[in-house]
Amino acid sequence: MANSRSGDSMTARIVRVLETFDTDRTVQTASDIARRAGLPSSTAHRIVAELTISGLLERDEDGRVHLGMRLWELGLRGSRALRLRQAALPHMARVQEIVREHTQLAVLERDEALFLERLSHPDAGANITRIAGRLPLHASSSGLVLLAYADADLRERVLAAPLRLVARDTVTDPGVLRGILRAVRRAGYVIAPGSVESVSTGVAVPIRDRGEVVAAVSVVLPRSSSPDEALTALRDAGAAIEADLRDTR
Amino acid sequence: MANSRSGDSMTARIVRVLETFDTDRTVQTASDIARRAGLPSSTAHRIVAELTISGLLERDEDGRVHLGMRLWELGLRGSRALRLRQAALPHMARVQEIVREHTQLAVLERDEALFLERLSHPDAGANITRIAGRLPLHASSSGLVLLAYADADLRERVLAAPLRLVARDTVTDPGVLRGILRAVRRAGYVIAPGSVESVSTGVAVPIRDRGEVVAAVSVVLPRSSSPDEALTALRDAGAAIEADLRDTR
Repeated sequence: MANSRSGDSMTARIVRVLETFDTDRTVQTASDIARRAGLPSSTAHRIVAELTISGLLERDEDGRVHLGMRLWELGLRGSRALRLRQAALPHMARVQEIVREHTQLAVLERDEALFLERLSHPDAGANITRIAGRLPLHASSSGLVLLAYADADLRERVLAAPLRLVARDTVTDPGVLRGILRAVRRAGYVIAPGSVESVSTGVAVPIRDRGEVVAAVSVVLPRSSSPDEALTALRDAGAAIEADLRDTR
Repeated sequence: MANSRSGDSMTARIVRVLETFDTDRTVQTASDIARRAGLPSSTAHRIVAELTISGLLERDEDGRVHLGMRLWELGLRGSRALRLRQAALPHMARVQEIVREHTQLAVLERDEALFLERLSHPDAGANITRIAGRLPLHASSSGLVLLAYADADLRERVLAAPLRLVARDTVTDPGVLRGILRAVRRAGYVIAPGSVESVSTGVAVPIRDRGEVVAAVSVVLPRSSSPDEALTALRDAGAAIEADLRDTR
């Protein structure tokens, strides 16, 4: 069905078009999209036209293209992430009232930590994460929690691959990382100073649904702060989120 | 490019597959999807397989299908809605602290109010809206604000179409509705008792970006409550959101 000469499916080409949009590039011309998606111009223009009819893309008055609200709606409306996010948000807000820095919700997606939600205090310190942004599993507190409880296959795959140095203190030695993951499973949380940014400490706890870890809730603090208060707030929030997930089954 | 005999594009068929998922139906078999999307079984199975490779759909251990996080990520990451939502969320939280009911953010999407965000107090009253849910423009306080400031074309189209009675007190007379919309533009807010649910009153204000109304922020209150405090909180929030949108241009 509609495979191009290069062998990728129509679906793959549509995804390539959608992937050219990101936080720093929300509006593009169809020609920009063709170039960035690596598609022939006529193909890209046709896909853009079809996606516009479906509402997944929209055009502004100048004919430039941006993502349609319809795409967001389709992605969220029937998503299992919506239930998780709705259960987590009030409890994240409570953590946020106590800690007044950054509080985040992340899930495992294709060997990375994908951030579903982030609440930030106006005066909070540095924080590299973005909603709908990603971080490597070994280089963020959320990622370390998700990796610690992931399938053994996934864990071994990540440990066997090159571990990128994201900040000066990112743990990139597989043996050391393996020890940290063991400690996370034993303690039920992680405190990760400087793994994403030298100036910050991440604190994260797992969220379980039906016995499986489905997410991590984390706080990003200035590295000079004590993580104790945040850890207590996170553990309380984690227990409350898990109780709410049980109630909405 | 890959138009079926019925003339719909491949993109349209993919959208039909994605549309079969909603809040009450987050997991389906490929055969369910085929039936609900009105597609031949082989076509639906092939689209599901392609979407699964791309990560827009995922399969669980039983082979049942659910929406992938990748779809949510693609829909949000490069979306202009993300900037609006991030600007609005802290100020909606402040409204929520004062009013302790429901606070919502809505945009105009294809002649309906599409709800991007909703914060709810655990003890709050009835509220029919859902995140990524929709309501008719004439039958919600957010919708009335969006309709009041919409292009004249859109407004006339909505006024000319049948106006559905959503609750006992929904305004369905085009002449009366026209007067309400004029009053909204004059006052800069709406107080709409019983338009969605008989037991509730909606209060909404517009949010402007670059001089155009891009969203509505609203509160849903028990109908017996005074709307005064909520209106003041909403107007303050609206001004603060608009200021933050100016700062992030």
